[in-house]
Amino acid sequence: MALIVQKYGGTSVGTVERIQAVADKVARFRQQGHDVVVVVSAMSGETNRLVDLAKQIREQPVGRELDVLLSTGEQVTIALLAMALEQKGCPARSYTGAQVHILTDSAHNKARIRDIDDQRIRNSLARGRVVVVAGFQGVDEHGDITTLGRGGSDTTAVALAAALKADECQIYTDVDGVYTTDPRVVAEARKLDRITFEEMLEMASLGSKVLQIRSVEFAGKYNVPLRVLSSFSEGEGTLISIEDEKMEQALISGIAFSRDEAQLTITGVPDQPGVAYNILGPIADANIEVDMIVQNVGADGTTDFTFTVHRNDYARALEVMQDTARRVEAREVSGDNHIAKISLVGVGMRSHAGIASKMFETLAKEGINIRMISTSEIKVSVVVDEKYLELGVRSLHDAFELDQEPAGKSGN
Amino acid sequence: MALIVQKYGGTSVGTVERIQAVADKVARFRQQGHDVVVVVSAMSGETNRLVDLAKQIREQPVGRELDVLLSTGEQVTIALLAMALEQKGCPARSYTGAQVHILTDSAHNKARIRDIDDQRIRNSLARGRVVVVAGFQGVDEHGDITTLGRGGSDTTAVALAAALKADECQIYTDVDGVYTTDPRVVAEARKLDRITFEEMLEMASLGSKVLQIRSVEFAGKYNVPLRVLSSFSEGEGTLISIEDEKMEQALISGIAFSRDEAQLTITGVPDQPGVAYNILGPIADANIEVDMIVQNVGADGTTDFTFTVHRNDYARALEVMQDTARRVEAREVSGDNHIAKISLVGVGMRSHAGIASKMFETLAKEGINIRMISTSEIKVSVVVDEKYLELGVRSLHDAFELDQEPAGKSGN
Repeated sequence: MALIVQKYGGTSVGTVERIQAVADKVARFRQQGHDVVVVVSAMSGETNRLVDLAKQIREQPVGRELDVLLSTGEQVTIALLAMALEQKGCPARSYTGAQVHILTDSAHNKARIRDIDDQRIRNSLARGRVVVVAGFQGVDEHGDITTLGRGGSDTTAVALAAALKADECQIYTDVDGVYTTDPRVVAEARKLDRITFEEMLEMASLGSKVLQIRSVEFAGKYNVPLRVLSSFSEGEGTLISIEDEKMEQALISGIAFSRDEAQLTITGVPDQPGVAYNILGPIADANIEVDMIVQNVGADGTTDFTFTVHRNDYARALEVMQDTARRVEAREVSGDNHIAKISLVGVGMRSHAGIASKMFETLAKEGINIRMISTSEIKVSVVVDEKYLELGVRSLHDAFELDQEPAGKSGN
Repeated sequence: MALIVQKYGGTSVGTVERIQAVADKVARFRQQGHDVVVVVSAMSGETNRLVDLAKQIREQPVGRELDVLLSTGEQVTIALLAMALEQKGCPARSYTGAQVHILTDSAHNKARIRDIDDQRIRNSLARGRVVVVAGFQGVDEHGDITTLGRGGSDTTAVALAAALKADECQIYTDVDGVYTTDPRVVAEARKLDRITFEEMLEMASLGSKVLQIRSVEFAGKYNVPLRVLSSFSEGEGTLISIEDEKMEQALISGIAFSRDEAQLTITGVPDQPGVAYNILGPIADANIEVDMIVQNVGADGTTDFTFTVHRNDYARALEVMQDTARRVEAREVSGDNHIAKISLVGVGMRSHAGIASKMFETLAKEGINIRMISTSEIKVSVVVDEKYLELGVRSLHDAFELDQEPAGKSGN
């Protein structure tokens, strides 16, 4: 008997038939004696339909009213799912974000959860009911409806799991777990049984779209075991949790990559204190997010400075940098928006030297030139020409034998 | 400067363009310096769409969850209208029923309003905003969402007007006022400038679908001046209020009629105390509503008993009555579901004799046989064969000169 929070996304509840299939899944868990709290998104397409209505009135709708509008999407789903559960003889109650006091700040369309009053949910569970909660939405201290931004239903689920001290938070999606890399690029990609929060964060932030970064951060912070699994098939999915001795002893858990990158380089910058701030300050002021940053000291008292931004921000960033170059009297600004980033991720690399050099060797053998390198405790990222992306990912997947179960894997 | 509550129904807000037209109307009132509270229904078709979704799951959806589902319809409209008002530079805030504490009992799908906390609305008005409230919905003492039943948005508007002591409650519809009778039946039907609550109640309960009966009762009880007018054209509509010395001195305000009638007669019932209860008790137990009741004492110590029910209930009522007839040893049960009811309504008839006899004379001249008669202080109703309905209504409209402005009409 456990307390489980389950979250089903828009595709999983996209039609009445699918909602009934979700009800079947939920009812089975309930029959096994578990307490179940279900968080659902709007039926797929519904949020877009509502946004379109709003945009017919105004390109940038008032944030407060947009939240009143969008929150109806999840409210429809909770009602239908609760009906479907009752229809199957499984007592259920639906609740909006406001009804279970998911208190957020007042940042409409991207609110952050501050607190959850779990009493109403606990009372409902104690009466043997499945509790169905609208994801993505909350209420601020003034009683105004707020939403957490796209994908916020994952965050709702994790926050509820944390507040209720649930045994597990299960995120049902249209994939059956987290893979060593994207199976569309590497056919031999292998589903992982377990992965740590840190690894998942790196994977998520590097382009694996399985989970929202915020929800993984949240789960890690409150140590809520998170499981990603498929709405449409059976299987244990992938458990995301803290590092555990029983955990498979892989050096590398997976390879993440991203095509949405662009690189900017400013060369011949007079090297003096404050140079990084002088260069990146105007970029930040333009609301452009910077990802990798590399600085090299040059020979003649100048420095070269390279960073990456989202490809959509490339043109704007280039403009800002040309201004900056004039101001700091740099030699030249150059850039490239046909680059890609490949990252090896794994908690195992903390205690093992040689991961980075093996990575560079593998890429060199394939004739792939590395343009930038950046490392963290559990990650090595390289920037390469976009055309080498698939080749690079495949050769690394092969070199690190990610298609094989790790040797030290426990019996679980 | 007045405080006005306006209600716009589903057709009036059926598309984004119509919502923008409503916003224009509202903004004009605001510009005139009035405080405006707007109550809106779901966009036309939306409630049916939601009901269809629910019925795909269960023919009789759980009442609580149906209310969670249906209440999203109005929530969509309030958000869009508030956006449209803001877009026109008219500050506005939307509120769900729960947000302005429209407290109801817990009778899901047909809840009754108990109380409204007007503080949040007053605060918003005091800041110069138009307040947009979702009609049809409330919240019970447990915080569960309730709905007031179809057409409940009228009730919301009147209840808000009463709570706020508004100067007028304006109900915008697709007709431009209350007519002496249905213009589709009598081309000469005339729009009334004013009518009393009592008259409107009789008109509404007799089949004039302009306003919900409950909302008229509510308005009468709290003496909220109610105005029916068109969303799509200009004009003063019809004011429904208490009787007023300045009011036009018509004997008859209008002719209401209904086709949805069926008649049942039980003859040769031994006449003894309790006979009415013995006959109508089982009908009430079967949840069938009875409209007109007529009892005649016969010659041989027996009585004949006739009553009317909604045509949809005819078959069931006939079954019940056949059982009853055996039990009370009545002679015979007969019935007819091809009847119609015609009623003259007017507060003027209180002080004027001869209305009924003129009515009977008019119908007799046309060769229309009267099957039942029932009278109240401000109404005379007759039941006739359905085929005579149009002829009867037209001849009465003509005989009582309802196409003419009443002679004693004031200058207003």
